[in-house]
Parts: sequence; structure tokens; C-alpha cells
Amino acid sequence: MADTATLILLRHGESEWNALNLFTGWVDVDLTDKGRAEAARAGELLKDQDRLPDVLYTSLLRRAITTANVALDKADRHWIPVHRDWRLNERHYGALQGLDKAETKAKYGDEQFMAWRRSYDTPPPPIEVGSRYSQDADPRYADIPGGPPLTECLKDVVERFVPYYTEAIVPDLVAGKTVLIAAHGNSLRALVKYLDGMSDDDVVGLNIPTGIPLRYDLDAELKPTVPGGTYLDPEAAAAGAAAVAAQGAK
Amino acid sequence: MADTATLILLRHGESEWNALNLFTGWVDVDLTDKGRAEAARAGELLKDQDRLPDVLYTSLLRRAITTANVALDKADRHWIPVHRDWRLNERHYGALQGLDKAETKAKYGDEQFMAWRRSYDTPPPPIEVGSRYSQDADPRYADIPGGPPLTECLKDVVERFVPYYTEAIVPDLVAGKTVLIAAHGNSLRALVKYLDGMSDDDVVGLNIPTGIPLRYDLDAELKPTVPGGTYLDPEAAAAGAAAVAAQGAK
Repeated sequence: MADTATLILLRHGESEWNALNLFTGWVDVDLTDKGRAEAARAGELLKDQDRLPDVLYTSLLRRAITTANVALDKADRHWIPVHRDWRLNERHYGALQGLDKAETKAKYGDEQFMAWRRSYDTPPPPIEVGSRYSQDADPRYADIPGGPPLTECLKDVVERFVPYYTEAIVPDLVAGKTVLIAAHGNSLRALVKYLDGMSDDDVVGLNIPTGIPLRYDLDAELKPTVPGGTYLDPEAAAAGAAAVAAQGAK
Repeated sequence: MADTATLILLRHGESEWNALNLFTGWVDVDLTDKGRAEAARAGELLKDQDRLPDVLYTSLLRRAITTANVALDKADRHWIPVHRDWRLNERHYGALQGLDKAETKAKYGDEQFMAWRRSYDTPPPPIEVGSRYSQDADPRYADIPGGPPLTECLKDVVERFVPYYTEAIVPDLVAGKTVLIAAHGNSLRALVKYLDGMSDDDVVGLNIPTGIPLRYDLDAELKPTVPGGTYLDPEAAAAGAAAVAAQGAK
């Protein structure tokens, strides 16, 4: 393989439901104008470094797809090959999808709220099939064996995303390509847990900010040369991670 | 194979250089606001019919890529698989790239101007390697054997695009998928010539308007059931084709 490989992770910019403080999961909401501006800024950061993306991987959700489209256009890399897969999707939030985070916290209490949001292996209650915010009839998920999930915990996301990473994405890294992954808070937490070898407990405290590329340079064994990677705008990333951690508090 | 296959062709919306009346070819200009609006309208037309695209093919040029991104987002098909290839690119306009169409016509005369624009097998003079509007150092074309072209006539476009159509795109049609191709005036003329079995002379009079999906329903032998296909907005298409034919007149 090449001497080093580079993997760049990008969480989508602010979505309409981030702005409304609702649980989103697999509901396919759009970016806000602020989210589009974050995506354009991410593109400038991508352009202003020495490893331009050679190939793009996205989820099947609009907020990640549009973030990548805007960022790559800004970085003059709009023409690179694209692969999309549901395994990069956000965690399915089950019956919480569409609910207000602050109201949910007030109704169920801090402990239950934090368990659903941050515990490694406690999924929320399953979403009702056929209900407004379920995905069971969505044609993009028709090929998932057994249908799309009805709820997921972070462990479930690790178990669907990490095999896709090793089978589909790693060959591009081994070939020396610089890979951009445009995805979501919890799917990227799942991948970072794997890359950095974090424990189930430690990943609970990990927050990934929106719209700031996180670059991992990988060694010959595809281990990070810098644990935790390097944000292309470290100051904005620190502020953004703090904002994610504070969600539900308002 | 499936009973029928559907192929939908989409020429990009108005580009910055369409608006300035310059020869564009492989120069990677952006859409205008009008072009983005055309792309969004194309997406509404795509959504309002019974064969939604299952897979997208684009050129490597921003104006086609962005047109597809905007249209598919509007049609709620932003998540379908994407393939990009230089063989779908616009005709390379050689040394004319970057020149004003009206000035070129005045300088070289009607006959030479129309030969370069519309004759089947007369390429413009080759572009100078290393000049401002050449693509010889562009990384997206690094894999083309012998490097990117220095000029092309429509015949050259037929000879690069039709084999890609038969080898890469036809298998999707045979599998029953509805295929969207987002490309350019001359690459789509090349494909239409092939699909409709047009003569070298007849294709000279063919004009394809920007931003209006052209749908071909294909029979079991992948021949058009309606010669010339069907524009999803026939009135706008007729007006648009007349506008393309009048280019260079102003």
C-alpha cells in the first residue's frame, strides 16, 4: 500500500431539525442556510490542505449528501467518484424521531434522556411501523434484509458501519486514496470509536461538531498517527463539540 | 430483461458562459441562477411522472453535476447511486474554448462558424497545451489514455460516448432500472443520434434545450418506442431548442 492513507470525516452542517432541537435519526430533513454555509466553509478547509479527497462516501440522507455536494463544489472536487450506503446513516432514533429534545428530557427525566442519547447499548423504544416518521415504506431502504431498523443504539451503528468501512472503504485507503466520508454525529462516533480503539464507556463522552472536517492520517496498519485525528479548524471544532454536548439543556 | 426500460436525458441548465455567449467545451464553468432554477424545474418534472430515476450518470463537469444534484434533490431522489465519467463530457471545443461566439462568427464568417459548431466531422483547431483554457494538467483527466483531447468534432464524441453507453449504461437498462443522464448539448446529441439512428447529416439540425428532461421509453431491443423521445415539458422544449439554434446570431 501507499506510505500513508488519509481519511477525512465530515458531519453534515446544521439541519432544520438540529435548529428546532428535535430528534432526527433517519427522518430526511434538509440543511438550514447556516448548515449550507457550514458546508461551504468545510469545502474551503478541505481545499486549503495537502490531501484533496479522491473518493466520497455518503449516507442516504439529504443533509449529508448536500453537505458533501456543497463542500466538494467549493473545493473543486465535485467530480470525484461517489458511493452512498445506508450503513453510514445516522443512528435510528426509534419512537423518539420527531420529538422535541427538551420536552423529552422534561417528560422522562435526565437519566432516561441521557441513556437514550448517549449510552452505548440502550436503544430508544422502537418506532411504530407505518407511523409518520418511520422509514419502512421508503424505497431507498427496500434492499435492507428484514427492512430498515425500528430503533438503534450506538452499538447497533458500530455493528452495521464498521463492517462496511472494512469491506468497502478500506480498499480505497489501501490503494492510497484520500477518502472523504460525509455522515452523521452518531455514525461518525461509531467509526471514531473503532479507529481510536475507544472503550464503550469512553465513546459516551465523544462529541463531533457539525461541518468541520476531521482528518485522520493512517499508518501502514491503518491506525491513526494522531489519536483522535486533527480538525481542520481546531478552535471552531472545540466550540462546536461543546454545543453538541449542551443539546437538550435548553 | 424488464418489459421496458426508461432513459431520461437532461442537458444542464444555463451556465455562466452560455449567458456570456462564449464557447465552453471542457472549461468547468458554473451554472447561473437561471440555470439553477432550470435544474429545480427539471426536478419537479422528474417527480411528476411515473418513472423516477434509479441511477444517475454525469459528466465530470460542474454544470452537469450541479444540475443533477439540484434536480434529484427536488425530486426526492438525491440518494440514488451516481456514476461519473469523462466520456459524457461536452464536446471539446479546441482553440475556440473561451472565445465569444458572435466575435468568432464575425471574424471567420458564417460558413466556417457553422462548420465548427454543427458539422459532424470538422473539429475546430486544437487548443494549445498549457494554455489558459486547456485541460492537460487537470487531475480529473489523468487516467485518459494519451491525455484529454485537444479538440473534438461530434463524430469524436459519438466514438467515445456510445461505447460507454453500451458497456456501462445498457446493463442498468437491461436490469429494468430507470437511468438519468445529466450531460451536455453535444454529448446528448451524440447519444440521441445513436438511439434514433439519425444520419450524420440529420444530426446537424438537432438542438437539445437546457434543463428539460427528455424521456425515452425503450423496447426489449432498447430501441425508442417513440422516435425522438418525449420532453417532459414539450412547449418549453420547443422554445428552448429554437433558442439554441439562434446562438451566435446576436
